[in-house]
Amino acid sequence: MASLGIDLGGTFARAAVVDEQGKILAADKVALEERTPGAVVESIAQAALNALKAAGTGAVRSCGVGAAGQILGDSGVLAVAPNLGWRDVPLGALLAHRLGHDVRLVNDLRAAAWGEFRAGAGRGSQDMYTVFVGSGVGSAVIANGRIVQGGGGVAGELGHTKVVPDGRGCGCGERGCLEAYTGGHNIIAQTRELLASGRSPWLHELSAGNPDMVTPVTLEQAAEKGDAAASELYEKIGLYLALAVANQVTLLNPARLILGGGVLMHCPGLRRRVVEGVQRFASRTSREGLLITEAELGDDSGIIGAALLA
Amino acid sequence: MASLGIDLGGTFARAAVVDEQGKILAADKVALEERTPGAVVESIAQAALNALKAAGTGAVRSCGVGAAGQILGDSGVLAVAPNLGWRDVPLGALLAHRLGHDVRLVNDLRAAAWGEFRAGAGRGSQDMYTVFVGSGVGSAVIANGRIVQGGGGVAGELGHTKVVPDGRGCGCGERGCLEAYTGGHNIIAQTRELLASGRSPWLHELSAGNPDMVTPVTLEQAAEKGDAAASELYEKIGLYLALAVANQVTLLNPARLILGGGVLMHCPGLRRRVVEGVQRFASRTSREGLLITEAELGDDSGIIGAALLA
Repeated sequence: MASLGIDLGGTFARAAVVDEQGKILAADKVALEERTPGAVVESIAQAALNALKAAGTGAVRSCGVGAAGQILGDSGVLAVAPNLGWRDVPLGALLAHRLGHDVRLVNDLRAAAWGEFRAGAGRGSQDMYTVFVGSGVGSAVIANGRIVQGGGGVAGELGHTKVVPDGRGCGCGERGCLEAYTGGHNIIAQTRELLASGRSPWLHELSAGNPDMVTPVTLEQAAEKGDAAASELYEKIGLYLALAVANQVTLLNPARLILGGGVLMHCPGLRRRVVEGVQRFASRTSREGLLITEAELGDDSGIIGAALLA
Repeated sequence: MASLGIDLGGTFARAAVVDEQGKILAADKVALEERTPGAVVESIAQAALNALKAAGTGAVRSCGVGAAGQILGDSGVLAVAPNLGWRDVPLGALLAHRLGHDVRLVNDLRAAAWGEFRAGAGRGSQDMYTVFVGSGVGSAVIANGRIVQGGGGVAGELGHTKVVPDGRGCGCGERGCLEAYTGGHNIIAQTRELLASGRSPWLHELSAGNPDMVTPVTLEQAAEKGDAAASELYEKIGLYLALAVANQVTLLNPARLILGGGVLMHCPGLRRRVVEGVQRFASRTSREGLLITEAELGDDSGIIGAALLA
């Protein structure tokens, strides 16, 4: 029997009816007008009912929700959801009450990794490591065919491993985190600092001197033009990211390494640095048999994974 | 029914009959006279038969062997065993033939971690990370109540994560590995280099100028005397080790962190640096609920773990 998968973002809720092989049978998307828990639950329910109707079924086996934020284990509680401005919202219980169904709430990265594992780039493996670099940096570990949640439910926080003791401040309140250097927001912040310093002629050229025009792609392009200061910054960012990923490959010895997220997708030069860095820095034995690949399911991975996890 | 556990070292084979709770009912130890696979199998069989006799039983449920070296997954093949000078020895099959029993062959660190997990410092948890610092540096990951082996069976190689790109040469043939700085052999090598440089009066004093007298404890003592050069080296070693362990705590979010191995056991100052470094560098959420503790079972952890894994 099919399952219901829900992907809760900051501006939309998507719902899909997904079969046991991870194929989407029908889907719907509803904009989040208001962001109170009650209104969001109502939007999700609307998307879910529309998807069920489109699939021509009233009954599903189970329901899984992937949401951006910190979810402690199987509590069903969204402890911190920056996109929605929520703290400690029992979204699982609220939705279960509204839908009349048990609901499993998981972190959106884990849902996406599970979708790739079961129905995408990870098919056929038992041990997979997924790294996402978007505005932040996250990862999901699958070992022995199961997601590693950790004792407190917060495993996978690659972005908050430390690369420079007492280094740049991070959004998490700590210092020297990988994300403080290699997350999209922080790549932009460092690029703006470089632009303001006047040391990078190409950055100035590409952004017309306007800090609001700067994206990670701007830095990549300036580095590719041979701009010395931009290259130096980009090499540092690439090295930190590559070393961190390579060290997890050494430690976890995954059969598949999946690279995803907007920054890695739009910055092929950064992606190349990570792939080359893994080849260079991961231990020889851990690299044997390792397949490095891109996510296959695109935006659908989260909704498929949420349905299959439920 | 009890199981048979075997701990194969470089100079002795130990065998024990272990009950389902991890209690040793009887044990025996046989010196390895010769190191050919045939002779070692005979020594193990002798120890096993003696232990069975002492336990007053002829029958066991299963047999597990923990051996120092690289074992690829559940192959039963000891791919590399430096202590014994072996390569690609099918020890599992040889022993199974000799003992008339299925035999499960696992890496000694994993066996020890499993012993602690089931019958020692990890009891009651599902997610445990064990770090061993002896002559080398190794680790074992238990997640969702199972050992993480990795796709190629070589997960856990903390010692070969890279801390300095293109840094000190490591015994593995690569450069800049954690073990090249923080493994016992390499702590001694760096301390001898410092002694030879003449920059450390306390090292000279404590070792009577004799490089053969140097151990990791010598460096710890010189650092504690306030010797500047020795302190600088020891702080660097402590920082590399602490950062690497802290980052795995952030990533894996274990409920228990177990610190073991001869160097951590005999160098309380290094152990303190690791514990403090984990408190300082691991992400706040991963530290919540984390218990950092020492191995409880001492030398018996490997033999108990091998029996319980079988």
